[in-house]
Amino acid sequence: MKFCTQCGKSLDHVIPPDDNRPRHVCTSCGHIHYLNPKIIAGCLPVFEDRVLLCQRAIEPRLGLWTLPAGFMENGETIAEGALREMHEEANAVGVEPSLYTVFSLPHISQVYMFFRTTLNPPTFSAGSESLDVKLFTEDEIPWDELAFPVITRTLEHFFADRTSRQFPLHTEDIRFKR
Amino acid sequence: MKFCTQCGKSLDHVIPPDDNRPRHVCTSCGHIHYLNPKIIAGCLPVFEDRVLLCQRAIEPRLGLWTLPAGFMENGETIAEGALREMHEEANAVGVEPSLYTVFSLPHISQVYMFFRTTLNPPTFSAGSESLDVKLFTEDEIPWDELAFPVITRTLEHFFADRTSRQFPLHTEDIRFKR
Repeated sequence: MKFCTQCGKSLDHVIPPDDNRPRHVCTSCGHIHYLNPKIIAGCLPVFEDRVLLCQRAIEPRLGLWTLPAGFMENGETIAEGALREMHEEANAVGVEPSLYTVFSLPHISQVYMFFRTTLNPPTFSAGSESLDVKLFTEDEIPWDELAFPVITRTLEHFFADRTSRQFPLHTEDIRFKR
Repeated sequence: MKFCTQCGKSLDHVIPPDDNRPRHVCTSCGHIHYLNPKIIAGCLPVFEDRVLLCQRAIEPRLGLWTLPAGFMENGETIAEGALREMHEEANAVGVEPSLYTVFSLPHISQVYMFFRTTLNPPTFSAGSESLDVKLFTEDEIPWDELAFPVITRTLEHFFADRTSRQFPLHTEDIRFKR
């Protein structure tokens, strides 16, 4: 971030008065630009004893398997964002979304939020960001070809919880050195 | 948003290729500026049979009572943000934060996330954004002087759940016409 969104002049990176951390502040009009974490909203689509995964058609992790998810947009609820991503990536509709896993990834300033949802109707196909979309039983999950740790953890929680039919919220922090 | 953060030239508001909604796109360098919802992280600090509220020293809702909360910052986890806000606004320390309420406010593109936490040690004082900080029993809560609907709902859930000593996650959408 180099230029002011309000007046187009150059930015300083300084601590504003009454603040305690550096911000991008305009040298001309004084506008303060705040940068905040982004939410990635996604679904864990379930049909009978299987879950729906998408094979990524885009980088990063092209060719690996993921749960449908993407950046939450302004003007929508978290669940609306999650279901929209499921529709875009898998041409699939989910019902009764229930917040299930929440991950903080502070090294990249992202928060992932996955909703359990029932795939209904049980129809789907690859959207433009997917090479393939398939239902997997627990035994069929391609554990070594999952795209991100948040996907692995969400699936691990789901299959563990399924034995008790209790699906409490799981919150976790995932930290990597950059 | 009027000018490009990368080159300082003017922006168009158009739908980029491979996208489905208008973005702020630079007329000169083509950089796409995405705007996404922000997370407000907060705490519900509990000490024995009382909860800690802060009287706001700043607009909006100056003089009304709130739970300590504020914008999550880059580089921190959600719980770290919630505990940081509790420290800044109430000079108070919370232990064992547990995610308790999640609200989507799509009309203002905000997501509120409150953590139940035990106030430990039970000491506190007004930070720079608070006029006063006090512990309240259920009977003492100033229900007509609470700052925001998310505060009212979080307190209502807490006192209802406390009778059963079960505190499941609550997710809600709050929509207002602007």
